[in-house]
Amino acid sequence: MLKRLLLVAANNKRLERQLGTNPRTRKLVSRFVAGTTLEEAIQVTKDLNNRGIAVSLDLLGETVEDLRKSAVATAAYIEAVQAIARECPGATVSVKLSQLGIGLDPAVCAAHLDDLLRAADDVGVLVEVDMEHSSVGGATLEAFRAALENYPDTRVAMQAAMRRTPNDLESFTKTKPRIRLVKGAFLETAERALQAHDEVTSQYLYLTDWALEHLPDPAFGTHDDRCIDHVKEAAVRLGVDRSSYEFQMLYGVRRDLQQKLADEGYRIRIYVPYGTEWYPYLMRRMAERPANLIFFLRSLVSG
Amino acid sequence: MLKRLLLVAANNKRLERQLGTNPRTRKLVSRFVAGTTLEEAIQVTKDLNNRGIAVSLDLLGETVEDLRKSAVATAAYIEAVQAIARECPGATVSVKLSQLGIGLDPAVCAAHLDDLLRAADDVGVLVEVDMEHSSVGGATLEAFRAALENYPDTRVAMQAAMRRTPNDLESFTKTKPRIRLVKGAFLETAERALQAHDEVTSQYLYLTDWALEHLPDPAFGTHDDRCIDHVKEAAVRLGVDRSSYEFQMLYGVRRDLQQKLADEGYRIRIYVPYGTEWYPYLMRRMAERPANLIFFLRSLVSG
Repeated sequence: MLKRLLLVAANNKRLERQLGTNPRTRKLVSRFVAGTTLEEAIQVTKDLNNRGIAVSLDLLGETVEDLRKSAVATAAYIEAVQAIARECPGATVSVKLSQLGIGLDPAVCAAHLDDLLRAADDVGVLVEVDMEHSSVGGATLEAFRAALENYPDTRVAMQAAMRRTPNDLESFTKTKPRIRLVKGAFLETAERALQAHDEVTSQYLYLTDWALEHLPDPAFGTHDDRCIDHVKEAAVRLGVDRSSYEFQMLYGVRRDLQQKLADEGYRIRIYVPYGTEWYPYLMRRMAERPANLIFFLRSLVSG
Repeated sequence: MLKRLLLVAANNKRLERQLGTNPRTRKLVSRFVAGTTLEEAIQVTKDLNNRGIAVSLDLLGETVEDLRKSAVATAAYIEAVQAIARECPGATVSVKLSQLGIGLDPAVCAAHLDDLLRAADDVGVLVEVDMEHSSVGGATLEAFRAALENYPDTRVAMQAAMRRTPNDLESFTKTKPRIRLVKGAFLETAERALQAHDEVTSQYLYLTDWALEHLPDPAFGTHDDRCIDHVKEAAVRLGVDRSSYEFQMLYGVRRDLQQKLADEGYRIRIYVPYGTEWYPYLMRRMAERPANLIFFLRSLVSG
């Protein structure tokens, strides 16, 4: 119920303006967002790398209203992959195709994605494609499938909550792309997605085994101890070395655990968002994890 | 909770003996089971056929403890397909591979299945393979996959509740076998199957669309109005004629609805069990539908 409210709030422009002008939200934002500029994000990446933690950079921003903005976002991503290659090789970028215009013109979006993938490939940086709401999910997956032909190391996020995900995964058993398994943080109907949190978690465990068995170098995007423990246990059971999969977590969430996994020799990559459009990103983080919401409310009260 | 209890009871030999000697259970058994002999089952089939309703015959019996019994069951099924060809062509048989010994020796079971499929093919009768508990589900599906090579019209039941089902279905997109979509009536862990009834229903709706889009002549095994309405609506939406799919229901369950669908020009096939081993079959029917349980309790009280 609360989750639903927060996910609706994520699309509320008025609330966004109000929170944006509230100085108390600053502290919150700075915990979960690396900064407003690429330079700040690169600095955070270097700090994390020094602690044995890999990074995927995310330029904040979601659906664009005109194609001009999608070109601007593409250029910003190309700038990011070039900065990564120079300053912190090993980092990846995570891109939302809605930001590249998939909702406006799939062909233009595909051209933008191709520009980004070529630029990244030129400098040896890998790209990860975020999975978004089902309204663009199908198109995102098709764009990813097409991109695989020239850039087979590209990774795509797959949401355990979506009913179509096992079908989509099974369709990958020949091409064997790299995926990031996440639970899924969008508001979806019962026809499209599992609704009960327990069911989503159980589905995540099931798909963890499937991914470890069938796909190379899977990433497990989760902060849930039950999921993390299951990944470790399933990998041992299935004979997958800890060098052959990675955990992914969000910047600012369970920082102690991030460091602990790195110290124990597990590969871990942190999704580091930067930019000015932090509002919908943050609302989804509140919705998916009560602890984040509590931190948010505390920072609003205590300033 | 109650469902779980009944599914546990389905494996309880002591309860089986007690109910088997209770004269009041007779009425109940005769509602859901066509009789103890093949002759009685054939007579029920003819009666249903006369009302525009197709049939699949099921020789009651589950896991066999020794391979001799699996040979006896196979011979009984072969007798059934020959009787069908003579007396009520158009009927199919539904076979549980546990009954043919899949839990004891998959190779022996495969040979039995092949004998049955050949005998059925010789007289133009189709065979449907029931899906059972996950302890034999994987082996059942592999046996079905092998059987498809020579007998591509064989049908297999797929359980919406099982997490692996969308993967299994997707793996069929090339061979395109006929399936029967059911919700699934076995006691399974959360790791293997959806637990919440609502989630299973939603998954059934999702897979209904998938089956209508991807597979020929799907059967929808359900007594749930929501599922039935969705099948009809999805078929219209996807341009699938009502001659290109069928409903399947169990003997004795929602008899008015069975007739109504037939009268409206929908294809409907009734799963007609016969034989002496009615106990686990009946317990599963109680577990999956409260109305069946109420009928059961009433018949115990009123005699």
